[in-house]
Amino acid sequence: SQKFGELYENQKSDLDRPLDTFLRRHIGPSKWDIKVMLKTLGYDDLETFIESLVPRNVLERKPLHLRAPAKGYTEQEMLKHLQSIADKNNYKARNFIGKGYYGTFLPPVIQRNLLENPGWYTSYTPYQAEISQGRLESLLNFQTVVSELTGLPIANSSLLDEGTAAAEAMLLSFNASRKKKLNYVIDSNLHLQTKSVLYTKAQPLAINIIEVDASNEESILSALDDTGTFGSMIQYPGTDGSILPINTLSKVSEKLHSKNLLLSVASDLMALTLLKPPSAFGADIVFGSSQRFGVPMGFGGPHAAFFAVVDKLNRKIPGRIVGVSKDRLGNVAYRLALQTREQHIKRDKATSNICTAQALSANIASNYCIYHGPQGLKGISQRIYGFTSILAKSIITGKCKHTLLNKNWFDTLTVKLSSDTNSRKFLDEALTKYSINLFAVNENIVSLSLDETVTKSDVISLLKLFLDEESVPDFNVLPEFPSEIRRNDAYLNQSVFNKYHSETAMLRYLHYLQNRDLSLANSMIPLGSCTMKLNSVVEMLPITWPQFANIHPFQPVNQVSGYIELTKSLSLDLAEITGLDAVSLQPNSGAQGEYTGLRVIRSYLNEKGEGARNVCLIPISAHGTNPASAAMCGMKIVPIKCLQNGMLDIEDLKVQAEKYKDKLAAFMITYPSTYGLYEPVIKDAIDIVHSKGGLVYLDGANMNAQLGLTSPGYLGADVCHLNLHKTFAIPHGGGGPGVGAICVRGELVKYLPSNIVTNRTVSRASQVTSVSSAEFGNALVLPISYSFIKMLGSEGLPFTSVIAMLNANYLRKKLEPHYKILFLESNSDIGGCAHEFIIDLRGYKSYDLEATDIAKRLQDYGFHSPTLAFPVPGTLMVEPTESENLQELDRFIDSMISIKQEIDAYIGGVSVGNVLKQAPHSLEDLICSEDWETRGYSRESAAYPLPFLKKNKFWPAVARIDDVYGDMNLMCTCPAVEDFEEHTE
Amino acid sequence: SQKFGELYENQKSDLDRPLDTFLRRHIGPSKWDIKVMLKTLGYDDLETFIESLVPRNVLERKPLHLRAPAKGYTEQEMLKHLQSIADKNNYKARNFIGKGYYGTFLPPVIQRNLLENPGWYTSYTPYQAEISQGRLESLLNFQTVVSELTGLPIANSSLLDEGTAAAEAMLLSFNASRKKKLNYVIDSNLHLQTKSVLYTKAQPLAINIIEVDASNEESILSALDDTGTFGSMIQYPGTDGSILPINTLSKVSEKLHSKNLLLSVASDLMALTLLKPPSAFGADIVFGSSQRFGVPMGFGGPHAAFFAVVDKLNRKIPGRIVGVSKDRLGNVAYRLALQTREQHIKRDKATSNICTAQALSANIASNYCIYHGPQGLKGISQRIYGFTSILAKSIITGKCKHTLLNKNWFDTLTVKLSSDTNSRKFLDEALTKYSINLFAVNENIVSLSLDETVTKSDVISLLKLFLDEESVPDFNVLPEFPSEIRRNDAYLNQSVFNKYHSETAMLRYLHYLQNRDLSLANSMIPLGSCTMKLNSVVEMLPITWPQFANIHPFQPVNQVSGYIELTKSLSLDLAEITGLDAVSLQPNSGAQGEYTGLRVIRSYLNEKGEGARNVCLIPISAHGTNPASAAMCGMKIVPIKCLQNGMLDIEDLKVQAEKYKDKLAAFMITYPSTYGLYEPVIKDAIDIVHSKGGLVYLDGANMNAQLGLTSPGYLGADVCHLNLHKTFAIPHGGGGPGVGAICVRGELVKYLPSNIVTNRTVSRASQVTSVSSAEFGNALVLPISYSFIKMLGSEGLPFTSVIAMLNANYLRKKLEPHYKILFLESNSDIGGCAHEFIIDLRGYKSYDLEATDIAKRLQDYGFHSPTLAFPVPGTLMVEPTESENLQELDRFIDSMISIKQEIDAYIGGVSVGNVLKQAPHSLEDLICSEDWETRGYSRESAAYPLPFLKKNKFWPAVARIDDVYGDMNLMCTCPAVEDFEEHTE
Ligand SMILES: Cc1ncc(COP(=O)(O)O)c(C=O)c1O
Ligand SMILES: Cc1ncc(COP(=O)(O)O)c(C=O)c1O
Ligand SMILES: O=C([O-])O
Repeated sequence: SQKFGELYENQKSDLDRPLDTFLRRHIGPSKWDIKVMLKTLGYDDLETFIESLVPRNVLERKPLHLRAPAKGYTEQEMLKHLQSIADKNNYKARNFIGKGYYGTFLPPVIQRNLLENPGWYTSYTPYQAEISQGRLESLLNFQTVVSELTGLPIANSSLLDEGTAAAEAMLLSFNASRKKKLNYVIDSNLHLQTKSVLYTKAQPLAINIIEVDASNEESILSALDDTGTFGSMIQYPGTDGSILPINTLSKVSEKLHSKNLLLSVASDLMALTLLKPPSAFGADIVFGSSQRFGVPMGFGGPHAAFFAVVDKLNRKIPGRIVGVSKDRLGNVAYRLALQTREQHIKRDKATSNICTAQALSANIASNYCIYHGPQGLKGISQRIYGFTSILAKSIITGKCKHTLLNKNWFDTLTVKLSSDTNSRKFLDEALTKYSINLFAVNENIVSLSLDETVTKSDVISLLKLFLDEESVPDFNVLPEFPSEIRRNDAYLNQSVFNKYHSETAMLRYLHYLQNRDLSLANSMIPLGSCTMKLNSVVEMLPITWPQFANIHPFQPVNQVSGYIELTKSLSLDLAEITGLDAVSLQPNSGAQGEYTGLRVIRSYLNEKGEGARNVCLIPISAHGTNPASAAMCGMKIVPIKCLQNGMLDIEDLKVQAEKYKDKLAAFMITYPSTYGLYEPVIKDAIDIVHSKGGLVYLDGANMNAQLGLTSPGYLGADVCHLNLHKTFAIPHGGGGPGVGAICVRGELVKYLPSNIVTNRTVSRASQVTSVSSAEFGNALVLPISYSFIKMLGSEGLPFTSVIAMLNANYLRKKLEPHYKILFLESNSDIGGCAHEFIIDLRGYKSYDLEATDIAKRLQDYGFHSPTLAFPVPGTLMVEPTESENLQELDRFIDSMISIKQEIDAYIGGVSVGNVLKQAPHSLEDLICSEDWETRGYSRESAAYPLPFLKKNKFWPAVARIDDVYGDMNLMCTCPAVEDFEEHTE
Repeated sequence: SQKFGELYENQKSDLDRPLDTFLRRHIGPSKWDIKVMLKTLGYDDLETFIESLVPRNVLERKPLHLRAPAKGYTEQEMLKHLQSIADKNNYKARNFIGKGYYGTFLPPVIQRNLLENPGWYTSYTPYQAEISQGRLESLLNFQTVVSELTGLPIANSSLLDEGTAAAEAMLLSFNASRKKKLNYVIDSNLHLQTKSVLYTKAQPLAINIIEVDASNEESILSALDDTGTFGSMIQYPGTDGSILPINTLSKVSEKLHSKNLLLSVASDLMALTLLKPPSAFGADIVFGSSQRFGVPMGFGGPHAAFFAVVDKLNRKIPGRIVGVSKDRLGNVAYRLALQTREQHIKRDKATSNICTAQALSANIASNYCIYHGPQGLKGISQRIYGFTSILAKSIITGKCKHTLLNKNWFDTLTVKLSSDTNSRKFLDEALTKYSINLFAVNENIVSLSLDETVTKSDVISLLKLFLDEESVPDFNVLPEFPSEIRRNDAYLNQSVFNKYHSETAMLRYLHYLQNRDLSLANSMIPLGSCTMKLNSVVEMLPITWPQFANIHPFQPVNQVSGYIELTKSLSLDLAEITGLDAVSLQPNSGAQGEYTGLRVIRSYLNEKGEGARNVCLIPISAHGTNPASAAMCGMKIVPIKCLQNGMLDIEDLKVQAEKYKDKLAAFMITYPSTYGLYEPVIKDAIDIVHSKGGLVYLDGANMNAQLGLTSPGYLGADVCHLNLHKTFAIPHGGGGPGVGAICVRGELVKYLPSNIVTNRTVSRASQVTSVSSAEFGNALVLPISYSFIKMLGSEGLPFTSVIAMLNANYLRKKLEPHYKILFLESNSDIGGCAHEFIIDLRGYKSYDLEATDIAKRLQDYGFHSPTLAFPVPGTLMVEPTESENLQELDRFIDSMISIKQEIDAYIGGVSVGNVLKQAPHSLEDLICSEDWETRGYSRESAAYPLPFLKKNKFWPAVARIDDVYGDMNLMCTCPAVEDFEEHTE
C-alpha cells in the first residue's frame, strides 16, 4: 500500500488535479514538522513508526473503499457536492407537521455569533470551570428558563432529546420506588416517538407500560390505583393538541403523591409561556424539547431536551447541572454541580448513562429567550395561539365538512376528515396547492401545529384548504388565551432576560460570554479520550443552509432525498471504515450508542433463544458510561482486571468468561485501550469471548488511532459505536451535540433501531424500536462527518491516525524525562503510546499536591488541561490529535516542563512552588489582591511563566472555584431580579 | 405626521402584522430608556425634544416614499426579498472576463473568521493604535506582501481601487515635477477603466494624457523625450495579456530617471509571484488590485488597491501606512505612520484626498497570503500560467481558425476571431454552450483570463470553443514560466507567511489578531463624525452569498438584473431621503463622493459657459477631505470663518461670496455642522451662494441627524454625498470599505459618472467619465444599505435620527456639569447638540495635560476614544448613535466622570492623577512593571477604575505608543525571517 510519506510530501506539480487538499489543512504538522518529530522519536519514516506501534496481527492497512475520490474532495468540490445533495431536500415547504418539531426563527445575531462561531462550537464540556464561565453562565440561563417556565426549582442543562428525557423521567420514577413496582401508567396522548423510546427503555428492566386515555379521568385514576404502579406520565398539551383540565391533573398528582409516587409531565416551553405551569398541578418532573426556541428542525436534531424536578429530587436528576459557587477571591463563579450523581462516578450504580448532552442547542435556546425576553416570548406564543384559534374557530363554525377533534388547543389541531377524502389525498392537496406539509394521524385524521413562522398568508392558505367557502377572518383582533388555563404569574424577571433586546446589546453579551471560554480558536485542548481536533469551516457551513436546517424529521421520504442520500453514503463509509456491515446513525451520543449496541446484542441473543445471557464483562479501565449503559440494558456487570502494566488481564478474562459461560452476553472493550495502548492481546481476548458464546462490543471512542490501519471488524468485534463528535470532526459544542453511530456485523443488522413514525429504515425484528425520538438522531450535524470523510478520502484518513499518534508520541517522548508516563516503561514490547498517554502525578499526593493543581496551573499557561482523573485517578491523559502542529506541541511541552520545575520547587519547600496551589490566576487576583508580598512568587511568574504568554494568552475569568461550597449551597438558576427594576420603574 | 412615541411604544397586539420589527433591534434604547432620557433632558416627549433641536425652517418631516413597507420589512421578510433579487444575477457562469477582476477562492476559514466576524468588520480605522494592534499587524502583513511582490520598499495599506490608485500615481508624479509639466505618457495597454479614471482626474488639473503603444519601443521612448512630459505609466502584464520585454522597460525607466521623472507600473500581484518584480526594471511606483487574493469579485468592489514606491517617495505616498514603533515598555507596537502627509493635516495642500480606504479587503488579501504561503501562491500562479499556456499553444498550433494576438502571457489571451464569426456570436456560444463569459475587446477580438478557480474541465470547454478539433492536451505536465521574465528571488520568507498553513493555525492567528482589537462587539465606539452604529447580521449575510459575491462587473446587463434592480431601488430611496433627484453609487468613499460632486458641479458650470467659476468656499470647520477634494478638482479654496459660538460666520460668507461672485463655483458645507450643531442660518447661507451663481455642496457625513426630519434637497443643496458607511450601516471594516454615494438636483443629473466598459448608466455629457474602476464602485456592500433602509421603512428611519440625537443629548447633559461642552452655552437659541457634541479639553493644556491623555485613559475604561482633535484640536467629539442603550451610555458617563476626578487630581498635583499620563495600561505593564511603588496610583485604580470593569473589560494590547520614534525610524513591512528557518532547516 501507498507510503504515508509520499502522500503528504511529494505533491507532484501537474495540472491534472487540484493543488490544495483538505488533508494539508486538517493536519497540523508540516512536512518539516513531521521530519523533526520522527527524528526525535528515532524513526526514519512514518512506516517504521507505525509498524513499531501497532501490533503485527492488528495492523491491517486494507485500502478503504469510500464513496469519494481516493485523495478526497477539495473544499470547493465538497461544497459543490453538498449543495447538490442539499438541493434534493424540499426545504421550501411550510412544515406544520408539529409533533415535537416546529418552525422557528433563529435570530441572525445568534446564528452568526454563536452557532457559526468557533469560539462557541469548538469548546469542550465545561469541566474546567475557570476557563468556561461563558458557557456555564449561558447554561445557567437555560436552566433558569426551564425552571421559570415549568415552575420547578431544579433544572439540568440539557438532555439528548424529548424521547430520552421521557425515559429518564420513567427511570427516575422507577428507581425512586426502589424498582419494586413495575407498572408505568402513561397517557396515550404522548407523542408517538416518545412512547416508542419509553417502550424500548422499559423492556430490559421488565417495566410494563400501561397506556391510558388520560382525558378519561376515571380511567387514569383507576390505573393509578393499581399497587404495581410506580409512576405516571402525561403530556401537556397532548400530542393531539388538547389540554387536560387542571382539575384532572391535580387529581392525578394527588393520587400519586398520596402513594409517594412521581408524576412526570411532557410539555412544551412555548406553550408554557401562556399555560399554567405544571407546578400548578403538582408535577414532580417536567421535560420536553427546547427546539422551538430558535433551534433549526434539522431533520430531528440536535435539540436540547429540558428536564426539571421538584426540590426533593435534586440529587436524583440526571445529566449535568450548572451551579453557582464562588472562586478563591469570593467572586460568583459557575461550575458543574453535584458531579457525584453522574455515571463517571457511579458507573453501574448510575441511574442514567448520559455524558455528552446538547450544550450548543441549549445555549441557542437560552439566548433566544434573552433576545426576546418574557414579553417577546409571550408575544410569539399569543400569535401562535391566535392564528390557531382563528383556524380552529373557522373549522368549527365555518362552512367546513371536517371535524375538529380537540376541544381546546395551544398550537395544534387534530381534524377528522369528511368521508369523501382521506389523509393521503388531503396531504397531497395541501402540498401541491399550498406547499404545506401536515401530519397524517391515520387514514382519516390529520393534524397540524402552527408556530412562530406562521404568517397571515399561511393561515389563509389553511383556511382555503379546510373550508368550502372563501373566508377572510378578522386579523385585527388577538384571541385571548382561555383564562382557566392561562398563567398569571410573572416569569423571567431576572435581569439577563430583560436587557439584551437590541442587536447591539445581544451581540456584546454573546461576545462577552465567548471571551470567557477557552476554545480551539485559542489553543490546543489536549483532552485524552475526547479527540479535540479541527472542526473545519467547510464541514460546518452546510449545517446552517436552509436545505438541511429547515427539514422536519417526519417529512415524507420523497421530500428528504438529500438527507437519505447523505445518511446512506455516510453509513456505507462508516461500515467500510469499521470493517462491519451496517450502521445506525440514530444514537445521539456515545453512551446512547453503547446502550443501543448492547440492546442489539441482547435482541439477537434473545431471538436465538439465548435471552438468559445477561452478563457483560467490562475491564476496570472502562469509561463510566460502559457499565452504566450495560446496567440500563438490565445486564449484570462483571469487571475484568487490568495488569500492573496497564494491559488487560487476559487470565482474569479467561476465568470470568469460563465462570459465566452460560450467562455471557457481551464483552465491552475500548481499543486502543482507555490507557492509550495498542494492546497486543486484543484478538485473543475477542476469541475467548466468542468461544464462550458472548459477543464483543468495541467502544470506538479511540477510533482516531485506527482509521485505515485496523478496524473493529478486522479485530473481530461484533458491534462498535463511533463518537462522530470525536474522530469524525463534529465539534464538541461545549458539551454536545454528539453522534454515537453504531456499526454491526451481519447477523445483527436486523436489530438496529427504527422509527415508529417514519418507519423508513428497513427490517426490525426486535424490541429496539427507537433509542432517540428522531430516526437519524442529531441529523443536522451529520454533514460534518460526511464532509470530513469525503474530503480526506481513503488516502487521507489513515494519515490522520498516523499523525495523531505521531503527535502523541512526540509529546510523550519530550515529557518522559520530566514526568512519569504510565504503563510504557513496563511494556518494552510496544513502541509507544497510541494517540494519547497518561501522565502519572500520584507520586506528588504525599506532598499534598494533586493532579488538579497541575491541571489548573496549565490554565495559567493558556492551555486547557488534559483529561483529569480518567481513566486513572491522580493522572492527566493527554491527546493532541492530528490537527496540532509542532509549534503548539512545543509550547505545551515547554509549559509542562516549566510546571515540573514548579512542582520540584513545591515539594522541595521552595516558596515559588506555591504558585501551583493558587492556580489559576485571574486578572483580578493578579491586579487587585493585596497579599502578593507574602505569596512567595511574583505576579509575573504567576501570569507569564513563559515568554510566549506575553504576546498571546487566554486568561481564566475567575480564580480557582470552590466546588464543595457550591454543592453545599445548591443554586442552579440565575440570581433573581437585580437591576431590571430600575429600568421598568 | 405620526408621533415618534406611538411608533415605538404602543405596538398594538394583533395578527395583522409581524410581531418583531427591525427597528426594535436596531435602536439601542428601550422604551423605558427613552423615558428616562427624556426626563433627564426635561422633555415630555420626543416631539417637543426634536422641535427644540431642529430649527423651525429646517424641520420638514415630509413622509418618505420609500420602496418598502412603511414599517419596513422584518428581518425574515428582508432575507426572502433579497434572495429573490439575488437569484436574478447569473452567478453560475464561469467568468473568464478578467480585466482586473478574477475568480478566486476565499478560504472558508478566512470567510467565517474575518469577513463574517463582527470582531473584524465593525472596527474603526486604527487611529487608536493601542486597541487596534490586530488589524495593524494584519495591514502590515499586507504592506509586506506588496513590498515583497513589487520589489519596492514602501507600501501603503490600501487605496480604493486600481483606477484611483493609477490616478494617485499620476498625481504623485505630477506633484513631484512641481506641476510644471503637463504631459503624462501612458501605455495604451492599460485597462480601459484605468485609463478612464486617469482622464477624469487629469482634466481639472490640465494634465494631457498621451497614449502610446509601449510595445513599440521607439514610440514610447520618443514620447518621453518631450520636455513637457512629467512621467509615464505602463501596465505589466498589459490588459491584452502580453508582457513587455524587461529590456524595453529598463530603457523607459532609465530615460525617465535621467530626467528625474517617475515610472509608474500597473501590475498584478498574482502575476508577480512568477514574474520579475517591477523593481527589476526601475519602477518608482507600482500599483494594482489585490482582489484576486481571496476577495470576491462582488460586481466590482470592494477591492483593496495596493501602492508601493521607492524609498525616496516615502513621504509622498498617498494613503495610510502602518509602521512599526514601540510602546512605553519598549515592546514592538504598530501604528499609522507619517500622518502629517494626510489630508486631515494638509487640507488643500494635500496631494490626495483619500481617507476611508479598503482595510477589510486588504486584510482578506494578506491573510490569503498567510494561508497559502509563498509556495502555495506560486503553486496557484503556476497552474494559472499552465492552463493558459495549454490553451494558448492549442490556439497557435492546433486546428484553430482564430489568431492569438499576444506573443506571451501570464493568464490572459487576446484572440482575433476568424472572419466567419464575430465577438457577439462567439460570446453567445461560450455562454450558452459552456456557461462561460469572455470579454469582447471589439467586434472581432475577444479576450479571456484564467484564474485560481480554473479546472481541467474549464480548459476542455475552452478548447472546444476555440478549436475545430477535439483536443485532449497533456495535463500531466506543468508548463514552465519563461526564464527571461521569471523571478528567481525568494519572497515572503517572513515567519508569518510560513507558519499558519493548517486551518487550526490560521484560525488561531485570526482570533489572536481579533482579540487585540476593540470593535462594536466589545463596547460603544463613540466617534464623532463616524457614526459607529449597528451593522446588523441580516444586512451582512447577503454579501457572502455567491449570487452577489461571484459577479464580474463586466458581465452583460442581462446577467446582472439582481444588482441592477437593487442599485436602482437603493438610488431612488436615497434620492427620496436626500430630497434630490438622482444618485450615483460609484464613489467608493466619502472623499471620492466629494470629488465627484464637485466635478459634477464644474461640468455643469462648464457646459453653461461658466467654466471660469472655480472658487470653492469652505468653512474652516470642514473635514480635511473637503479642501483636499476641491483642490484635486482644480478649485481655489476660500475659507469661511466661524463665529466664537461655533456658528458659520454668515457675514464672512456674504463678504466672500460677493468678493468672488464671478468666480464662485461652490460652497461646501456639512450639515448639521461638523461641530454637531443644527445651524439655523443654513438656508440663508445657501440663498447667499445661489444668489451669486454658485452651487451648494452638502457634505452628508452627518446625515444620521437628518433622516426624515429634513434633507439636503429641502435645505436647498444642489449636490450632497452620503457616507453609506456611516448613516446607512455599512460597517467601517477597520478602515474601509466605504460608499460615498452622491445625490444631485435635476440639472446636474446628466453629469453623473458612467463606466467606459459597461456603459450602462444613462446619459453622460461630461468629462466625469469614471471616478472608480467599476460602475457601482463597492457594489458588494450595497445590499447592506439597501436592507438598512428597507427594514426601517419610512416610519423607522426618522426615528433612528431622533434617537441618535436623544442619545447624544443625554450624554451631553450628563457630562455638562463635569466638562466644558463646546458652543452650546453660547447658543441659547438652540436646545442642544444634534447627534454629536464636542468636549473641550484645551483648558488643561497649560497643566501639560493633552486631549490625547484623556483619550488614552478611556481605553483603560474599555472604551474606544471619541474623535480626537477633529474638528477642533484639543477636543474630543462624541457621537453615540442610535444603537447604544442607556446602560452603555451610563457606563460611558460614569467613565468620563471618573476621568474628570483624575484630571482634577492631576492638575491639583495629586499623584493619582498620573494615571492619565501613563494610560493606557497594558496587562504586561500592570503585571510586570517594577515601578509601581513610585507611580502614585495603584494597579487596581489603573486597571479597574470602576467596578463594572472587573466583570468585563477590553484590554489594550500594548502600552502607549511612541509615534515620534516610529516616524523617525520608518519601517512598514514585517520584520524579516525569524523562526522560519528553524522549520525548513
Ligand atoms: C471511552 C469512552 N467511551 C464512551 C464515551 C461516552 O461518549 P458520550 O460522551 O458521547 O456519551 C466517552 C466519552 O467521553 C469515552 O471517552
Ligand atoms: C465630515 C466628513 N466629511 C467627509 C469625510 C470623508 O469620508 P471618507 O472617509 O469616507 O472618505 C468624513 C469622514 O470621516 C467626514 O467626517
Ligand atoms: O477622518 C475622519 O474619519 O473623521
